[in-house]
Amino acid sequence: MKPAKVVILGAGYGGIVTAIRLQKLIRAEEVKVTLVNKHDYHYMTTHLHMPAAGTDHHENARVAISELINERKIHFVKSTVQQILPEEKKVILADETLTYDYLVVGLGSETETFGIPGLREHAMSINSINSVRFIRQHIEYMFAKYKLTSKHKEYLTFVVGGAGFTGTEFVGELADRLPVLCRTYDVDPALVQIINVEASPTALPPGLPHDLVEYGMEVMRRKGVQYKLSTAIKACESDGVLLGDGQFIPAGTIIWSGGVRGNSLLQQAGFDVQRGRVRVDDYLRSFQYPDVFITGDCSIVMSPEGMPYPANAQIAVQQGCNTARNLLYTLRGKPLRPFAYDYKGTVASLGRGEAVGILKVKKVKGKFAALIKKVIDARYLFLIGGIPLVWRKMIFKQKITTRNHHVRS
Amino acid sequence: MKPAKVVILGAGYGGIVTAIRLQKLIRAEEVKVTLVNKHDYHYMTTHLHMPAAGTDHHENARVAISELINERKIHFVKSTVQQILPEEKKVILADETLTYDYLVVGLGSETETFGIPGLREHAMSINSINSVRFIRQHIEYMFAKYKLTSKHKEYLTFVVGGAGFTGTEFVGELADRLPVLCRTYDVDPALVQIINVEASPTALPPGLPHDLVEYGMEVMRRKGVQYKLSTAIKACESDGVLLGDGQFIPAGTIIWSGGVRGNSLLQQAGFDVQRGRVRVDDYLRSFQYPDVFITGDCSIVMSPEGMPYPANAQIAVQQGCNTARNLLYTLRGKPLRPFAYDYKGTVASLGRGEAVGILKVKKVKGKFAALIKKVIDARYLFLIGGIPLVWRKMIFKQKITTRNHHVRS
Repeated sequence: MKPAKVVILGAGYGGIVTAIRLQKLIRAEEVKVTLVNKHDYHYMTTHLHMPAAGTDHHENARVAISELINERKIHFVKSTVQQILPEEKKVILADETLTYDYLVVGLGSETETFGIPGLREHAMSINSINSVRFIRQHIEYMFAKYKLTSKHKEYLTFVVGGAGFTGTEFVGELADRLPVLCRTYDVDPALVQIINVEASPTALPPGLPHDLVEYGMEVMRRKGVQYKLSTAIKACESDGVLLGDGQFIPAGTIIWSGGVRGNSLLQQAGFDVQRGRVRVDDYLRSFQYPDVFITGDCSIVMSPEGMPYPANAQIAVQQGCNTARNLLYTLRGKPLRPFAYDYKGTVASLGRGEAVGILKVKKVKGKFAALIKKVIDARYLFLIGGIPLVWRKMIFKQKITTRNHHVRS
Repeated sequence: MKPAKVVILGAGYGGIVTAIRLQKLIRAEEVKVTLVNKHDYHYMTTHLHMPAAGTDHHENARVAISELINERKIHFVKSTVQQILPEEKKVILADETLTYDYLVVGLGSETETFGIPGLREHAMSINSINSVRFIRQHIEYMFAKYKLTSKHKEYLTFVVGGAGFTGTEFVGELADRLPVLCRTYDVDPALVQIINVEASPTALPPGLPHDLVEYGMEVMRRKGVQYKLSTAIKACESDGVLLGDGQFIPAGTIIWSGGVRGNSLLQQAGFDVQRGRVRVDDYLRSFQYPDVFITGDCSIVMSPEGMPYPANAQIAVQQGCNTARNLLYTLRGKPLRPFAYDYKGTVASLGRGEAVGILKVKKVKGKFAALIKKVIDARYLFLIGGIPLVWRKMIFKQKITTRNHHVRS
């Protein structure tokens, strides 16, 4: 009997955890697993706000896939997915075509622009190692550019659209980072503005209780963050943003963290989607194509109350574990195990040594919450790479000394 | 008797050395000395190629003026000179007007574009702390930008116009720096190009013997530098340069080091100039206005053979020493001492651990020349700030760890 072919698309949280779990469960000869990813590394999306702001090295937000997978059990292909053909059970990559018996789609999200004109062209999003390296450089470039003439104060205005999870965590880091850049570039900190624009009436991740939101906003305001709540962005231009109230904010940097949608390849492949995401069955499979599992930001999982769970790293990791197990059961003809989301809480960082959040039902804030945040990060690294990875990415981590390679003495 | 008023414009090599020497020679009550500079720091122009390429921190290329001058003897004004009125013995600054009995003009140079269209708009020059911070950021920004799409190979092409002293020293550093950026940004080094374009038939500083030029070019070629000699730049555009031979090189970075001219304020003030520079008498004074001393890149000093000496840091420093002494002699009614240039040689760095040059008549190259280069740098720091400055800028110098301020562990 020929071994079954499993293809996993994407090495984000859902995909990489599926792969890592699967390689522990299976024997190499019973199934041929192929993992496809456009980079040869996995990155921790929840950590990207730090390298984006320049407060941590991007190396601490990624791990080489070769360090995570057992290449005797999983074949890794570095390529870009062009098309999924679920009827033909094929996936077309940039340079080859794969066939599968079972497919796992973990292709992540795309920026949701809500049709705001100019946003795609002029705003940056925190969504990949490449994008955060760019954002970090862009921010510093604005200081350097400002200093060429000392005339363009708009270069020192940083607008962040969206004050949800990513927006808040990024703004917290940015507020820590900009005073450092002021010193490096001899810029008066009073000239620098961070403006966080949010269409809904509250900042910080949805679902946080009122007192934590107040606490968090106070922390941010003390760092100099200005909030514009209940304010939509009407248009983005190359030199600033137009707000719903008619105000134009001249700004050299516009970061958009206002929303994501599922990868557009799913809709192109004929899946029924809502904002690019596919509603999955109890076993995280497509209703249309039960041989296709969908994880992470590409999927919609309904709660027992009939509401979609918010897409985040926590649910994606649990989906990966469930998918790996159900793939094994499918291959061995055993009954599948329904997915049950175990919500552990949410902690949002507010910059150095500050965070707010909920652990199950307990509120946490301040230094303690910041510590919990680290524990959450460490827990994930441990899950995918064990103690050595925690060690390397959190303890003896890469310092931000890129330019030091050539420091002479 | 009212004390005489001496105004020194510019704290470059000529100006700062005049000020430092003067404060040692004079008594505070006999003369009122004002030093005007647009920054509150002095910078070492000959060191700027390193921070421009990103191989050294820009802090090591500058010193706070307050650390160099004795504020009981010299009044420092941080301002920009708007106009010199030599007939009225006045200098108009951005926010006040100074009168003088004796003026020292050390306002440095401006970029000479030779009328090349687009050069002023699209090329960067290595001529200030602000400009080199910008160039450093621009270079890294190009890598970040390239990685957003991996399509625009022109972002990885670096064109340097001019292969004289500054061009060569910068290209040497750049060739050291780019492989580091390739690692940081996951870029294949084979995609990166450094093209040094020079209108004259040879690279490296003029006056070097043929064998040293050959040696230097070979060092640079081994690092991946491409030379285009006997090739003029016909035009600069936002996306590349058009060469005299009709070839267009698409490039994201264009650095111009092809020439400088004296500060245009001198011409505006009615001084007779050649390429913005004023020919001075044996005592470094204007022939038109003998109460105006002119030093450094603003002046033309003729050799005994009747040829103008090339403007550089070495001659500017010697001019500063001579000017300080002659100011003292003038104030005390003593006969002035004519300026005699003591040419000690020229050493051009070719990047890490490599240099070529001439010491008086002796040729030097390789590691030894690189060491001599450091001795020259140290000697200057010693001259202006003594052992502590050598210590701080060369031994316990600022490391390139700007982003480290917020590295967490």
